[in-house]
Amino acid sequence: MRQNRAFEMHSPHRYSDAEIAAVYRTIAERRDMRHFLSTPVNSETLTRILQAAHHAPSVGLMQPWRFIRITDTATRAAMHQLVDEERAQTAKAIGEYENTARMAEFLRLKVEGILDCGELLVASLCSHREHQVFGRRTLPEMDIASVSCAIQNMWLAARAEGLGMGWVSIFDPIKLSTLLNIPSGAKPIAIICLGHVNTFYKAPMLVEAGWKEPKSLAEMVMENTWSTDKTG
Amino acid sequence: MRQNRAFEMHSPHRYSDAEIAAVYRTIAERRDMRHFLSTPVNSETLTRILQAAHHAPSVGLMQPWRFIRITDTATRAAMHQLVDEERAQTAKAIGEYENTARMAEFLRLKVEGILDCGELLVASLCSHREHQVFGRRTLPEMDIASVSCAIQNMWLAARAEGLGMGWVSIFDPIKLSTLLNIPSGAKPIAIICLGHVNTFYKAPMLVEAGWKEPKSLAEMVMENTWSTDKTG
Repeated sequence: MRQNRAFEMHSPHRYSDAEIAAVYRTIAERRDMRHFLSTPVNSETLTRILQAAHHAPSVGLMQPWRFIRITDTATRAAMHQLVDEERAQTAKAIGEYENTARMAEFLRLKVEGILDCGELLVASLCSHREHQVFGRRTLPEMDIASVSCAIQNMWLAARAEGLGMGWVSIFDPIKLSTLLNIPSGAKPIAIICLGHVNTFYKAPMLVEAGWKEPKSLAEMVMENTWSTDKTG
Repeated sequence: MRQNRAFEMHSPHRYSDAEIAAVYRTIAERRDMRHFLSTPVNSETLTRILQAAHHAPSVGLMQPWRFIRITDTATRAAMHQLVDEERAQTAKAIGEYENTARMAEFLRLKVEGILDCGELLVASLCSHREHQVFGRRTLPEMDIASVSCAIQNMWLAARAEGLGMGWVSIFDPIKLSTLLNIPSGAKPIAIICLGHVNTFYKAPMLVEAGWKEPKSLAEMVMENTWSTDKTG
């Protein structure tokens, strides 16, 4: 064990302690933001963040991510409306699956910052994905996995740049496709709010709001076989 | 525009230039690795990398990621066998969808490093996900998105630590579930090879191997509406 540690410390591939600390800091301080300032985002910064997305891994190098930058005010307002509609549907469903107290709690949460954020983007799966068999024959959802890795890259790049980002998935993808002329073979999976913030949440907003208690890493890790004492 | 830049440079949330550079360096130099040295990974490093995964965002704070660490040699060998079986099926499918030359090209690629890597893990979706309505009523696949963000965090943490990581999705999830006693409500989505490497690929391995030409970021970004001149 001590030998493994020594081997690692002397690996030519290991970054400096300061660089490693910066990566872990970013990972720990990244938050799914819902509160934004309306100050615009510098366009060069936006490009760097999108370039970070584009550095993501993708199954069979399919690069299935597509981004639509929303600069039109009416489109932004229509997207906000779509999310608001689905928010009501989600509240109703939470009322049915759980109870009305939980529904009321959900309705008190801020679930998006679409009208306030400096930059609004939509991330979508590309069309013609059926041709991509490599790594997807048994797991076709690997395209979503690749786009998600790209979005996580954006999130971390944005956090380091001092910008907040939020991934909103409370929308009907068919209605959003209609609004943005996304073809039926493609599929929007994220409304991304990006922008300056007054402050970053100290803990995930849903923890701060008392929506849910987070589980510990220890509950997530098993050895060699699924453990039935793990939570779900 | 110049004002936006000035605002950003003076944001109290912006990391130092050196920290920002470290984050972008990690994002750019991360690779989906297939070639490993068998040197073991220090257990504290493994814990830090798993903790990075656990810092990921998750839809409605569901934290749907579960990790199975494979320490049993026979299980590792059985997993390699499962991937080899699916590799043959994928090759056949590529032969049918594309052509036999492409199938031969695929068969020349190294698609996993299961027998060589220092640490072998499986990432799985948890069970009982049907109860999680928040952010998933219209997009149930957001659970896979959350686990993918967690895996991307691991990838970046590992890269900074000087370790390579590969996400293998060439396996039958039902057969892998049987092998690891994963219940039917859960679903493995990644075999993760983690470990020391002789060298990191300069470009994605599939680019170096000539499997595919990567597209540029410019081809991925549209404004306000889907553009039909974009590739898929």
